[in-house]
Amino acid sequence: MSGILEDLLEIVGSRASSSIVERRCYAADASQIEGLPDYVVRPKSTNEVSRILRLCSRHQVPVTPRGAGTGLSGGASPVKGGLVLDMSSMNRIIDIDIANLQVIVEPGVVQERLNLALKPYGFFFPPDPGSSAVCTIGGMISNNSSGMRCVKYGTTRSYVLDLEAVLADGRVIHTGSKVLKSAAGYDLTRLFTGSEGTLGVITRAGLKIVPLPRSRRLVLACFEDAVIAGQAVLMVFSSGITPSACEILDKTTCQVLKRCDPKLAIPDDGDLILFEVDGPENSTVKECLHIAEICSPLALDVRVAKSQQEMDAIWAARRLVGAAVAKIDPAKTRIYMGEDVGVPMSQIPALIKRVQHITAKLDIPAMKYGHIGDGNLHIALFIDVMNEDQWEKLRIAADRIHKAALELGGTVSTEHGIGLARAQYMPEQVGQEALQVMRSIKRALDPNGILNPGKLGL
Amino acid sequence: MSGILEDLLEIVGSRASSSIVERRCYAADASQIEGLPDYVVRPKSTNEVSRILRLCSRHQVPVTPRGAGTGLSGGASPVKGGLVLDMSSMNRIIDIDIANLQVIVEPGVVQERLNLALKPYGFFFPPDPGSSAVCTIGGMISNNSSGMRCVKYGTTRSYVLDLEAVLADGRVIHTGSKVLKSAAGYDLTRLFTGSEGTLGVITRAGLKIVPLPRSRRLVLACFEDAVIAGQAVLMVFSSGITPSACEILDKTTCQVLKRCDPKLAIPDDGDLILFEVDGPENSTVKECLHIAEICSPLALDVRVAKSQQEMDAIWAARRLVGAAVAKIDPAKTRIYMGEDVGVPMSQIPALIKRVQHITAKLDIPAMKYGHIGDGNLHIALFIDVMNEDQWEKLRIAADRIHKAALELGGTVSTEHGIGLARAQYMPEQVGQEALQVMRSIKRALDPNGILNPGKLGL
Repeated sequence: MSGILEDLLEIVGSRASSSIVERRCYAADASQIEGLPDYVVRPKSTNEVSRILRLCSRHQVPVTPRGAGTGLSGGASPVKGGLVLDMSSMNRIIDIDIANLQVIVEPGVVQERLNLALKPYGFFFPPDPGSSAVCTIGGMISNNSSGMRCVKYGTTRSYVLDLEAVLADGRVIHTGSKVLKSAAGYDLTRLFTGSEGTLGVITRAGLKIVPLPRSRRLVLACFEDAVIAGQAVLMVFSSGITPSACEILDKTTCQVLKRCDPKLAIPDDGDLILFEVDGPENSTVKECLHIAEICSPLALDVRVAKSQQEMDAIWAARRLVGAAVAKIDPAKTRIYMGEDVGVPMSQIPALIKRVQHITAKLDIPAMKYGHIGDGNLHIALFIDVMNEDQWEKLRIAADRIHKAALELGGTVSTEHGIGLARAQYMPEQVGQEALQVMRSIKRALDPNGILNPGKLGL
Repeated sequence: MSGILEDLLEIVGSRASSSIVERRCYAADASQIEGLPDYVVRPKSTNEVSRILRLCSRHQVPVTPRGAGTGLSGGASPVKGGLVLDMSSMNRIIDIDIANLQVIVEPGVVQERLNLALKPYGFFFPPDPGSSAVCTIGGMISNNSSGMRCVKYGTTRSYVLDLEAVLADGRVIHTGSKVLKSAAGYDLTRLFTGSEGTLGVITRAGLKIVPLPRSRRLVLACFEDAVIAGQAVLMVFSSGITPSACEILDKTTCQVLKRCDPKLAIPDDGDLILFEVDGPENSTVKECLHIAEICSPLALDVRVAKSQQEMDAIWAARRLVGAAVAKIDPAKTRIYMGEDVGVPMSQIPALIKRVQHITAKLDIPAMKYGHIGDGNLHIALFIDVMNEDQWEKLRIAADRIHKAALELGGTVSTEHGIGLARAQYMPEQVGQEALQVMRSIKRALDPNGILNPGKLGL
C-alpha cells in the first residue's frame, strides 16, 4: 500500500500523512474499538474527496470517513486499516437561507456552531446529541444522531433535504434538492442518512431549520422507582402532550450529579423525570400544570423549575452525566457497551426492571439515564479496567442488556449507531432477509467494499 | 402467459381473474395513462402475496401493485401488462396502540377510516391527501403522499415506523420495528416509502400517530395577485410561525368555488391564501392576529374565520377544487399533466409568474391552487379532449411548467409521484449519477425487473 502516499500528497499536499503519530491519533473514535490506519487525509473539497476515492477504489484501499470522532460504536475506527478521511476541515457554513427555511453546510461544521449562527435569525437545527459542542453535522447525518429534543422534533433524518455525496468510485451525486417536499424517485437522502459512511462520503448537506420556540418550561418529577416513573411518562404522552424533552435520571445518576455540584436543585432520593415543554408562553404554563397534575398521584415530589437560570443549570448538569459518572468510583472507568438500547415506550418499565436485575446479579455498578420519551435508555456500566474478571462480567452484562432490548421488541441502538460494537446483533435486530437486502444495496453501491469495511454487520 | 391463471386460482381462489371486464377496470389509475393487465388478483394475506410474487418471478410476469387507484401519475397503471395486485382487500386495522403512539394496519386501510378510528383516542395520522376519503395507506406510503397539513406535520415518510414488505422473489422482510427511534443499519423503511411499488409489495405498516391539536383557526388573506400572495407567505414563515396549513387558491379557483356554492364566505376578487394554525387555544388566537398583522399591508382584505362551521365549509370547498374545476367550462376536461410541481419557497412568486405566462401564451385556461407553504403548486389545465390541437398545446404547456420548476431549483412532483407521467424528467430531476444509483438499487432488489416495470424512469 506504500504506493498511494505519493498520489495522496499530490491530491491534498501536506494534508496527507502516514506518520505513526498521526495514525495513532486516528486509531479510534470515543469507543474502545481500535484499528491502526495506514494513512490520514484531511480533504478540503469535494473534488479532493472524489479523487481520493477514485484512487482508493483503484488500489482497493479501505476508507473510513470521520467527523469529530465522538462516536461510541467504533463507526470511525479504521478496523481494516487503510485510510482515515478526516472531514473536519470541510467546515464552512455555505448558506443560511431563512426564506427557504434551510442551511447548506459542509460536513465538518460543528452542531453548536451552526446553532449559534442561526440564533440571531430566531431559528435552530433541532437534533442535539450530548456531544453537540464538538460533534460534526457529517457525523450526525452518518449516524442519524438525535438527542434530548428529538422526542418532539425528530432525529437528524427529519432535517436532511439534500446531500452531496461521493460514491466509492469517485462519482458525485446529489440525493435531494432545495425543495421542502418532493416525491421523485428513491429516497437516497434517507438511505445515506444513518449509513455510517458505508455507502458514500458526505461532502455537503442541505438541512431544514425551524423557528426557535418562544418559551421553554421544565417539570421535575421524582419517583420512588424507575418503573413507576416509566408509567407516569406513558400517561403524559397518552394524554396528548408531546414534551420537547423527556429525560430520566435514576437515583444513582442524581446522586452523582449532586456530588459534582451540591447546589444543584434536583432531588436525589428517587428516580427523576425531567419533562420540558416548549411553545408559546401560555401553552407551556398550561402544559406544565397538566403534567404536574398527571404525575402527582404517582410521584414522591413534583415541581416546576422557577427560572431560566435554574433550567439552564439542570440541563447543563444533564449534559455532564456522561462525564460525571467517573465520580461514582475514581478507580472505575465507564465502558461504552450496552449503553444505547431502546424499546417501544410501553416496555420501558420492563426494560428498567430487566437492567436492574442484570447489573445487580453481576454486581456491576450502573447508572440509567436517557431519552425515556423515545423509549431510549442509556446505561452507564463501570469497571476496574485492570481486572479481567470485571471485563468478562461487563461483556456478559452488555450482551444481556442488548438481548433484553431485542426480546422486548426494541433496538440495540437508538442513536449511537451499530458500527462494530453492535454489529453482531444485526441479524437478530433486522432479520436475516432485511440484512441480505442491506448487503445487496451495499454491493450495488460499493462493489469493492472499500467504504468503512467491517461495519454494520454487512 | 396463460399458464399462470391456474396457479393464481390455486393461491387465491376466485379472487384471481383474467376476464376482460375485470382487466379493463384495472387498466388505469386516475391519470390518463393506461395499460391492459393480463390478470387481476386481490390477495388477502402476506402469504398469498409472497406466493404470487414467487410465481411471477419464476414466470417473469410483471406485477403492478395498486391501492385505491387514485394516483395521478400512472403509478398503478399496468403499462407492461402482467398482473395487477389489488391490495384493497387487505384492509384491517390490526392494532391501535396509544401507549406506543402507533397503529399497525394493512395496506388497504383507507386514510379517513383510520382517522375516524383514532379520533375517540384524541390522536390522528396527519398526512392528508385530497383523496383521503378513498385513498389507501399502502398507496400513500408508496407515493410518500402528503397534503395540506404536511407543511407542519411532514409527509407520510415521517410517520412510517415499520413496513412488512414482500420482495420480488417472495421473501418477506420487516424494514423497522415498534421503536420510535432507531439507528440500526440502512433505513429500508424510507427507501421503500415513495418507491412506487418498484422494490416490493407492502403488506403491513406500523405508523406513528400524534395527538389531535386542541384548536384550529383560519385566516383568509386576499391579494391583488399571486406574486404578492407568495411574498406574504414568505414573510409569515420567516417570522417564526409554522401554519398547520398554508393554501393558495387563485382568483379563477375562488370564482369556480363560488359558482359551486354561492353562499361560501370566500372573496373572489383576488388570489386567496388560507393560513390555518393549530395548537392550544391561546396560541392559535395570538398566531392568527400575528398573521393578519403581517399580511395587512400587502393584502386587499384579511379576516379570521368566525366559527368552526365556517372553517369546515371553507375546507370542504378546498377539498372539492379538483372536482369543481369542471364548472369552468363543461365542454372542457381537466387533464392531469404538469399538475404537481414544487419549488423552494422563495421561488414561489417566480413560479406563479412563469405559469401565468406559459398558459396565457398557449391560451389554455388554468387554475392554480395548492400547498404554497411547501412550495407546492397544483395547476389545473383544461382542454376540449376532442380537439387534437388543444392536446398538443396542453403537452407543450405541461412540459414548460415542468421545466420551469426544474429551472427554479424545484421538483416535477411534490406529492403525486413520478409514475410514468413524469418519468422522462428523472435524469434532469435527480441527475444521471443519482439515477444510476437508483437503477443499481432496483437491480439489486428486483433483478428480473418484475415489480411495476416502466415506472420512475428506472
